[in-house]
Amino acid sequence: MKSYKGYLIDLDGTMYRGSEQIAEAAGFINELRQRNIPYLFVTNNSSRTPAQVAEKLRNFGIETDNKQVFTTSMATANFIAERKVDATVYVIGEEGIRNALQEKGLELVEENADFLVMGIDRAINYEKLTKACLAVRNGAAFISTNGDIAIPTERGLQPGNGAITSVVAVSTQVKPIFIGKPESIIIEQALQVLGVSKEEVIMVGDNYDTDIMAGINAGMDTLLVHTGVTKKEHLLQYEKQPTFVVDTLADWQFE
Amino acid sequence: MKSYKGYLIDLDGTMYRGSEQIAEAAGFINELRQRNIPYLFVTNNSSRTPAQVAEKLRNFGIETDNKQVFTTSMATANFIAERKVDATVYVIGEEGIRNALQEKGLELVEENADFLVMGIDRAINYEKLTKACLAVRNGAAFISTNGDIAIPTERGLQPGNGAITSVVAVSTQVKPIFIGKPESIIIEQALQVLGVSKEEVIMVGDNYDTDIMAGINAGMDTLLVHTGVTKKEHLLQYEKQPTFVVDTLADWQFE
Repeated sequence: MKSYKGYLIDLDGTMYRGSEQIAEAAGFINELRQRNIPYLFVTNNSSRTPAQVAEKLRNFGIETDNKQVFTTSMATANFIAERKVDATVYVIGEEGIRNALQEKGLELVEENADFLVMGIDRAINYEKLTKACLAVRNGAAFISTNGDIAIPTERGLQPGNGAITSVVAVSTQVKPIFIGKPESIIIEQALQVLGVSKEEVIMVGDNYDTDIMAGINAGMDTLLVHTGVTKKEHLLQYEKQPTFVVDTLADWQFE
Repeated sequence: MKSYKGYLIDLDGTMYRGSEQIAEAAGFINELRQRNIPYLFVTNNSSRTPAQVAEKLRNFGIETDNKQVFTTSMATANFIAERKVDATVYVIGEEGIRNALQEKGLELVEENADFLVMGIDRAINYEKLTKACLAVRNGAAFISTNGDIAIPTERGLQPGNGAITSVVAVSTQVKPIFIGKPESIIIEQALQVLGVSKEEVIMVGDNYDTDIMAGINAGMDTLLVHTGVTKKEHLLQYEKQPTFVVDTLADWQFE
């Protein structure tokens, strides 16, 4: 087995399940730390800041520096800043995306925005959706942090950001640029932060459609772990298989 | 020219434009009344009651009895009542759809609904969308009053009910049954109310994609009037042309 020099790692379903611990996760991260292998957590969750995400991981006993968290909000802010200096942004979303855009020096506005950014916003309302539609019709570039259609909660599957984003996509008939997994945009940025070339990095996650497809789309090796969304029987339907599959991260051989 | 024995008539763009009068509309309706030709206004607007719609028409000088207004909310309530007696409904929407469902004896519930109904709701929020998604995932039949993607307002094109409906369609991956124009469901019900067979009725409207397509889908003759959405140059792109086209309703020959 190849000895990878860097790891990109998913969170929900891989490091924990909602508010529930995944027993093998802390040991997996400890192994990486002992071997001095760089790793980065890559998440489609746009609502929380890296500090909030890192704190959650530490509460599960998973050693994490804030700088080891790479969110789709950070990728979105980078994506915009690379395209236009001093861009104005109309944003629908929660603390994580607002912070990321502002930290990148982008100006949040209500009208005449260069970009519309949509991230999950549990305070969504008709006025926000109207402003978003008007922004796109007035020529704002349409960006969405991720296309996740559903969010698992104790109540069941709630609407995800991809579903909310569809209001503006359907109304304006303009397709958004999605930043998060399975798109390669977030992965390519994460590889830059990690500072290891993609041939030597493996993408680790529990969800074939987002994590594994993101790795495949970016041309990387992938490790699917059966502690979350994608079960063994689901895997049969896919033509392109992950490079490796394990039941839990305890089964992973580092070299 | 054929002498039609019944008329189905669109409202916005045909009888008025938002809060603006269309000068030729009142005369057209007066002609129908003098000739004793039955007519029915057919609208995709689910938010208002027939009484509210009729009052608006009267304020524009257009003689209207409340019973001459047929809304997609009424068609939706009929559609459900025909399928299940004493059905329970979780509804997203405003006064028009709520009234129509209750007048049909359907019970509005927050959980364990047999049907989910989505109509335009300018007080939409994440909790309502969550309940809607959970209802469909729990087996509720998914009905939407209409698929309009945008609503013309003074601010520009705001998101329509079809755009909001897409949140639930995308998240659950279940396609809704749309009731309003261009579907034939609303037209077939309107014909029953009018009591004239479709071969002798003409569908009149300004919007090719909704009004004229509804007539075509129901197998009726159609009259497009250029006082609203569809301009002469738009018409060129369509293979199936309306039976008749006029600039204003003053140009229509009743026989």
